Amino acid sequence: MDNSSNTPPKHGAKLTDTHIRLAHGNGGVYMRELIERVFAAHLSAQAAGLDTEADAVQVAALPGAMYISVDGFAVTPLEFPGGNIGSLAVHGTVNDLAVAGATPRYLTLSAILEEGLEVAVLERCVVAMAEAAQAAGVMIVAGDTKVVPRGHGGGIYFATTGVGQTDPGLQLHMNNIEAGDVVLVSGSVGDHGAAVMLAREDFGLHGDLLSDSASVLPLVKALSGLSGVHFLRDPTRGGLATVAYEIANATGSCLRLQQNQIPVRDSVSSICEILGYDPLYLACEGRVVAVVKADVSAIVLQRWQQLPAGKDAAIIGRIESAEALVLLETPLGGERVLEALEDDPLPRIC
Amino acid sequence: MDNSSNTPPKHGAKLTDTHIRLAHGNGGVYMRELIERVFAAHLSAQAAGLDTEADAVQVAALPGAMYISVDGFAVTPLEFPGGNIGSLAVHGTVNDLAVAGATPRYLTLSAILEEGLEVAVLERCVVAMAEAAQAAGVMIVAGDTKVVPRGHGGGIYFATTGVGQTDPGLQLHMNNIEAGDVVLVSGSVGDHGAAVMLAREDFGLHGDLLSDSASVLPLVKALSGLSGVHFLRDPTRGGLATVAYEIANATGSCLRLQQNQIPVRDSVSSICEILGYDPLYLACEGRVVAVVKADVSAIVLQRWQQLPAGKDAAIIGRIESAEALVLLETPLGGERVLEALEDDPLPRIC
Repeated sequence: MDNSSNTPPKHGAKLTDTHIRLAHGNGGVYMRELIERVFAAHLSAQAAGLDTEADAVQVAALPGAMYISVDGFAVTPLEFPGGNIGSLAVHGTVNDLAVAGATPRYLTLSAILEEGLEVAVLERCVVAMAEAAQAAGVMIVAGDTKVVPRGHGGGIYFATTGVGQTDPGLQLHMNNIEAGDVVLVSGSVGDHGAAVMLAREDFGLHGDLLSDSASVLPLVKALSGLSGVHFLRDPTRGGLATVAYEIANATGSCLRLQQNQIPVRDSVSSICEILGYDPLYLACEGRVVAVVKADVSAIVLQRWQQLPAGKDAAIIGRIESAEALVLLETPLGGERVLEALEDDPLPRIC
Repeated sequence: MDNSSNTPPKHGAKLTDTHIRLAHGNGGVYMRELIERVFAAHLSAQAAGLDTEADAVQVAALPGAMYISVDGFAVTPLEFPGGNIGSLAVHGTVNDLAVAGATPRYLTLSAILEEGLEVAVLERCVVAMAEAAQAAGVMIVAGDTKVVPRGHGGGIYFATTGVGQTDPGLQLHMNNIEAGDVVLVSGSVGDHGAAVMLAREDFGLHGDLLSDSASVLPLVKALSGLSGVHFLRDPTRGGLATVAYEIANATGSCLRLQQNQIPVRDSVSSICEILGYDPLYLACEGRVVAVVKADVSAIVLQRWQQLPAGKDAAIIGRIESAEALVLLETPLGGERVLEALEDDPLPRIC
C-alpha cells in the first residue's frame, strides 16, 4: 500500500479523534484503530493471546461443568466515586459467577458507544476494566464495538459474558436452604446505590461515600470447602431486600431479618433519610449474602471478618419454616413485612 | 403473601403493560414479569433447563478446545424484510463461531431496552431469536435485561456471546492462506445492507429484496473434513471488500477479485447505483467467503451450490504473491485497487 490517506494507521500510531464518531463502528479503518489503540492496548497485556483479527477466539477447555453468566451495564454517570462502568462491568459478571460457586475464567465484552463520547472517558473505563479483570484473574478474550448516533445511547453501554469452571468446594443452590439456616451479609448495604445517586446530583453531601464495587471472589473463596454453606448471592439491583424476597419466594420459607444487625453506613442512612429511600433496596456491587447452616455461621463470620472486604460482615437473620415472606424486626421489637420491589427507586444504577 | 397489589404476578399471568417502562429493568417484580412472560416464555422451550432465578447457569462441559465470540446489535429499523434484530443477533454470533471452525453450542443475551418500546415489537424479536437459535442448534442459556430512559436507546440493543466447540474437520486460520489459493463467496453480496436501507427510507424500490440474514452453519458444515479449506469469514460490516482487504493486509498477499464473477442481485445493483453505494462494501449477514487450495475449489463450489443457501455461490478471485492489496478486475479488462473502508457508507446495519 502507498502512504495515501487511505492507508490504515500503522501499529503504534495515535488515535487522533478526541470523540467517538459513527465511523468508529463501521467495521473499517477507524474501528480497527479504536479497537487497537483503546481496547487491545489496555486489555491485551492481560490477555496475551487476544486476537483482534478473529471472529471467534479459541480458548483452553475448562474441566468439569461450566458456568455462564451475562450482565448489561447502563449506569449513569459513567464514572462515580469508587469505580466506573468499566470496573463495574467486570465485577458484575465476575460476582454472578462467584456466588454461583464458579471460578471466573473468560469474559467477553460488547461495547455500544454513543457518537460524541470523549475517547478519554472511554479509555479510563477500559483501563479500570483491565485492572478489575487482572485482579479477579479473568481474561477478556473477545470484544465487539458498535457506535450509535448521538441521542441514541448513554455514552457507553457495556455487556459482559463470563464463563467459569466449577469450584468443587462450593455446592450452592437455593434448594439447599432449610429452616434454621442463618443469613449473613459481608458488609454494609446500599453503598453503590447511594454513591451513584450522589455522583448524579449535587446534594452537597459527598463525604467519604464510595461505591462498594469490587470482586467478591475473595469472600466466596474463603468459604470454599466449608460444609454447610447453602447459598450465596450478591445483592445488586433491588438490594438486600430483593435478594431476601427472592429467597423467601423460591424456598417457601420466612426470612426474618434483624434491622439493627444490618450494616448501613451513616452517610448512606443520611442520604436515604433526606431523599426517602430505603437502603435495603439500594444496589450493592461488592457484597455477598450467605445462607448457611446455623452451626457454621460463626466460622463464616470469622472468615469474612478476617478479610478487608468482610470486616463489617454480620449475621443479619435466619430462615424459618413459616409462610414465604420477609419479616424485618425493628430495633424497638416490632416487625414489618418487606415487600418486593415494584417501582424503581433509582434507575440506571448498574 | 396476601393478594395485595404488591404480590408478584403468578406464573401464567399476562404482561399488562403494552410498552416498556423503567421499572421493567429495576430487578424487581416488573422485571421478573417481563423476563418470564417475554424472554423465558419463548426461549425456554428451546433451552429446557433455563433457570431464570440463577445468577449464573451451569452447562455441560465442551470437549476439546472452546471458541468464544461476542457481537452487539444496534440495527435500525428493528424489523426489516427478511429478519429482525432478534434473528440477526443469533445469526451474527452463530456465524462468527461457524467461520472460525467451531460448532456453536451456547448463547447468552444482553438486552438494553428503551423506555417506551412496544412490548409487541420486543416479543416478535424474541420469537425470531428463538426460531433462529432452534434452527442453528444453539441454546440461549443466560440473559440480562436493562431499561434505559426514553431518548437514550434505540428501542432494542442486543448483545450475544457464543460458546462453541471445535469441529475437528475444520482447521481454519488466515495463516493457512497461500499464493495460488482460490476465493469463493457463497451467495450474492450486499443484500442485508440494501434491505435495511430500503426498510429505513422509502425509495419506492422495494421489490423482492430481503436481507440474507441466516445461519451459515450448513455452508460451513458442508466443507468439514475437506482438506485444503484454508480460511472462512462472513462478510458483515464493511462487506466483501473489507474481508478482502483484511485478508490481503494480514497475509501480505494480493487478493485479485473478478468483478463480473461476484454475485450481486439486480435490485441491490439498482439501489446502489441510485444512491451511490458500492455493493462490495455493503453488509451481508448470511454469506461466507472461503479461501481454498485451487485443486479443491471446484468441490467447494459444487458442495455449496447443492445447498439452498449456496445456489448462487461463485469463484470470485485468487491469492497472488504480490504486494498486499485488493485488486478488482473490471469486466472491460481494467483493474482498480479496492481501498479499505474509511467513512461509514451506511451506519447501524447490524
